[in-house]
Amino acid sequence: MSFKDLASFEPLKKLSRAPIDLSVDGAINEKRIEKLSAENLGFKLLYATERVSQEVMEKLFSLAQEAKAIEKMHAMQEGKVINYIEGFESEKRTVLHTAMRDFFENPVSTMQAKEAASLALAELKKLELFIKKIDKKFDAIVQIGIGGSYAGPRAIYEALKAYQEPNKKVFFIVNVDPDEAAFVLKQVDLKKTLFVSVSKSGTTIETLSNEEFVRDHLKKAGLNPKDHIVAITGKKSPMDDPSKYLESFYIWDYVGGRFSATSMVGGVMLSFALGIDNFKKILQGANKVDKSVLSKDVHKNLPLLDALLGIWNRNFLFLDTLAIIPYSAALSYLILHLEQCDMESNGKSVDQMGKFIEFYSGPIVFGDVGTNAQHSFFQFLHQGTGLVATEFIGFRKTQYSEDFKFANSTMQDKLLANLFAQSLSLAVGEKSSNYNKLFLGNHPNHILLSNQLDPFTMGALISHFEHKIAFQGFIWGINSFDQEGVQLGKKLANKMLDHLSGKKEFGLAKAYLKHLESFSK
Amino acid sequence: MSFKDLASFEPLKKLSRAPIDLSVDGAINEKRIEKLSAENLGFKLLYATERVSQEVMEKLFSLAQEAKAIEKMHAMQEGKVINYIEGFESEKRTVLHTAMRDFFENPVSTMQAKEAASLALAELKKLELFIKKIDKKFDAIVQIGIGGSYAGPRAIYEALKAYQEPNKKVFFIVNVDPDEAAFVLKQVDLKKTLFVSVSKSGTTIETLSNEEFVRDHLKKAGLNPKDHIVAITGKKSPMDDPSKYLESFYIWDYVGGRFSATSMVGGVMLSFALGIDNFKKILQGANKVDKSVLSKDVHKNLPLLDALLGIWNRNFLFLDTLAIIPYSAALSYLILHLEQCDMESNGKSVDQMGKFIEFYSGPIVFGDVGTNAQHSFFQFLHQGTGLVATEFIGFRKTQYSEDFKFANSTMQDKLLANLFAQSLSLAVGEKSSNYNKLFLGNHPNHILLSNQLDPFTMGALISHFEHKIAFQGFIWGINSFDQEGVQLGKKLANKMLDHLSGKKEFGLAKAYLKHLESFSK
Repeated sequence: MSFKDLASFEPLKKLSRAPIDLSVDGAINEKRIEKLSAENLGFKLLYATERVSQEVMEKLFSLAQEAKAIEKMHAMQEGKVINYIEGFESEKRTVLHTAMRDFFENPVSTMQAKEAASLALAELKKLELFIKKIDKKFDAIVQIGIGGSYAGPRAIYEALKAYQEPNKKVFFIVNVDPDEAAFVLKQVDLKKTLFVSVSKSGTTIETLSNEEFVRDHLKKAGLNPKDHIVAITGKKSPMDDPSKYLESFYIWDYVGGRFSATSMVGGVMLSFALGIDNFKKILQGANKVDKSVLSKDVHKNLPLLDALLGIWNRNFLFLDTLAIIPYSAALSYLILHLEQCDMESNGKSVDQMGKFIEFYSGPIVFGDVGTNAQHSFFQFLHQGTGLVATEFIGFRKTQYSEDFKFANSTMQDKLLANLFAQSLSLAVGEKSSNYNKLFLGNHPNHILLSNQLDPFTMGALISHFEHKIAFQGFIWGINSFDQEGVQLGKKLANKMLDHLSGKKEFGLAKAYLKHLESFSK
Repeated sequence: MSFKDLASFEPLKKLSRAPIDLSVDGAINEKRIEKLSAENLGFKLLYATERVSQEVMEKLFSLAQEAKAIEKMHAMQEGKVINYIEGFESEKRTVLHTAMRDFFENPVSTMQAKEAASLALAELKKLELFIKKIDKKFDAIVQIGIGGSYAGPRAIYEALKAYQEPNKKVFFIVNVDPDEAAFVLKQVDLKKTLFVSVSKSGTTIETLSNEEFVRDHLKKAGLNPKDHIVAITGKKSPMDDPSKYLESFYIWDYVGGRFSATSMVGGVMLSFALGIDNFKKILQGANKVDKSVLSKDVHKNLPLLDALLGIWNRNFLFLDTLAIIPYSAALSYLILHLEQCDMESNGKSVDQMGKFIEFYSGPIVFGDVGTNAQHSFFQFLHQGTGLVATEFIGFRKTQYSEDFKFANSTMQDKLLANLFAQSLSLAVGEKSSNYNKLFLGNHPNHILLSNQLDPFTMGALISHFEHKIAFQGFIWGINSFDQEGVQLGKKLANKMLDHLSGKKEFGLAKAYLKHLESFSK
């Protein structure tokens, strides 16, 4: 059934004509803050500052039920084929990133899920031995990968640098821009550096180019590339070649790039940098959330709750942009990951039946860490001519035990005071007869709060957003797991390159090249 | 006169009802690519992939004339008071960031501009001596600053790392989050580290907290903070205290934070890291563009052209989001700078007469470097349910002379092929009866192209966007130079902190704290 045909769609539409005005005096009060909150697994979702009422929430819960959101999540985790477009040529795959961490309590018991988990566990065991073997040989690791082979792993690494083992260094080569690889290679001692080359298909042109660039440097330094490069790829891909790599770790087509951070795609680098035990804690945190999203109790199912608030803002209040603002400097790279995870999954205009949808799907996602963002684009959030939904993330405690009291409060107190103050001020606004100093308020936002950013919590956070995004796709009835939108650019780039190499002329390439060449004059 | 009352507004509105459809076969052809381009100072603006015709461009040029855009730019650079709201309490300031680099050809000759330039030049000379004096004493520099004291300087530093002097390290402490400062301090040898504390007002709470945090560490290491910290601040600010700093450099209230990268705010760190000569080249590049924007020949005035394309997309095609996609890994931090510069300047709902505007002003800005972004949110750009305008940036040559040929083309060729391919594919789209593989196209975008990302070019690029943004503000009739939208959050944060310290109770703070405290259970 199409999203717009769900029984609760029209009632929600009706409710959206007069949603609560958060800027009315007293609209946000202690009772509302207390009541509009949910808690599970050490996370709290505080959504008193969303433009919802109890009635809206009830209808949103019904909407999720009518869309069979939980059932679809079961189907996903059980390994049903859910990545498809009905009646058209498409990927026809299971979606089993949750199996990458289903080694703990109550594993999913279907054959598909069990097999995927046992394959993943075998890789984890292989990794454990591998890390022991190479731990003293290398002092730096360079992850070569792009898209999901970069964003998620980097987000986790940066979040957990506080847990990094001493004397370990981590670098990333992502872009086909040769300046990036050149710059990274200037900073490492090749003799003591391990490279991890990540491409599921084994054909990602950026990654292959960078790997060859690195091989060339290793050879020139008198080293054998095979002793320094690990492959993370699909079985039987062109990169699955033991003669060329120190070790190979496997991933599978049922783990999409943007959902692969907890597979070996993130695993090798994270285990090297943070230790295998910390990597396992990340998996445990993610797994705990995986289990929680199978729960019909929406008050304990925070990713579903988060998804529904997003749907309210997107489909009923027509906000097309979501700002993600973590009040933790360590989460600066989470934004790039969520930009990919959300916009690549749900930036779609076609439903799973292959029909154009008549409603808005995934939003534009951007952001920066607070308090930095307050001194930057928050001007727009408060007074611009566009309305942006905001998701704040915060933690009670610091990662390092260093804090400093200045002007009567610690820095962490200041950080949290600013988090709550921004959430509130976006909602309540402030009156003034000087319109330049007037804040209209009524900007919906919510806060995801936890105790401390540690490996377990970071794993949980990654899983939280994976499932928030999946739930939105389930409810919209779209396929969140393919990415056909990246194909046309690839095709035209190849036409450009064929023109360049003289293989086949391409008129438009000629026009651009003429512009390029004029610089040499 | 209000933007909507400008003579060309209605004709443009009429033209916007049937703008060129870029996805029609042959709409983008060699001739159009040749014709819809402009060139100046080593930059090319290729806008064949915008939804404009010659007629639209002519009307946009008229619009700029009617809004007196060039005259206002003259007034700005001449030091007229342009930062104000008529009839209301507001900042009443000149806006003279261009004077920070007006030491070369044809300096602006008004008294205000000359005085500002001569003060800035005096600081530059002081800096030159200072760098000579301390160059061998320190091997690391840590910039402590937030907002404009961070984003612009960091964008320039990251862009020009290829020019970094050997054995110099650069770090940034931005956030009030104590984990950030703790992490940076772990990585430096305090004895050999210079800190640059930047706050124009001398009261920025994040920066003061971090500076005190650093002072505490220096003292504990047996060092005298005065020997390690430089102040960059306004004269007579609380930070203008020679007894506490190794040296003080000045900035003035006519240089807004987000426009301050070429003042001492960026100057000290950049001169230490890249050498004073490279910093001067940055200033020269910026200055060249400053001169070019005074030209009425819009074909040589690329920032104005860029501004007008933005206005077409924002006010006539109603696109509310702008993606900035540099095809250069070194420009990854430019996006944060432009987010601030654009959204803090033009994220306003009130015009310079203090009235609410009845049109859209500055857009939401986000982005990431290509090709990375292609493997991330480009799915949304191609197939999402929102329309985003895109500005590409590219360079013909690499920074390092290292490149690598793989599969018949160099990496730089691949990078440029992808840049042109994305610009084209967003515009032309691709037909398919499988809607999941269909690309509607007709997504407006343009390319800003230059030869190589060197100090001169980076200075020019910074100035390009400063002026693009200023021109948009001039045409919209808003004040791009204040930022009242940041005040309410500060006020509420202080109420939260007063509650915390027991100074004054704040009910809503209590409600949030209760949530925080429950974690300890």
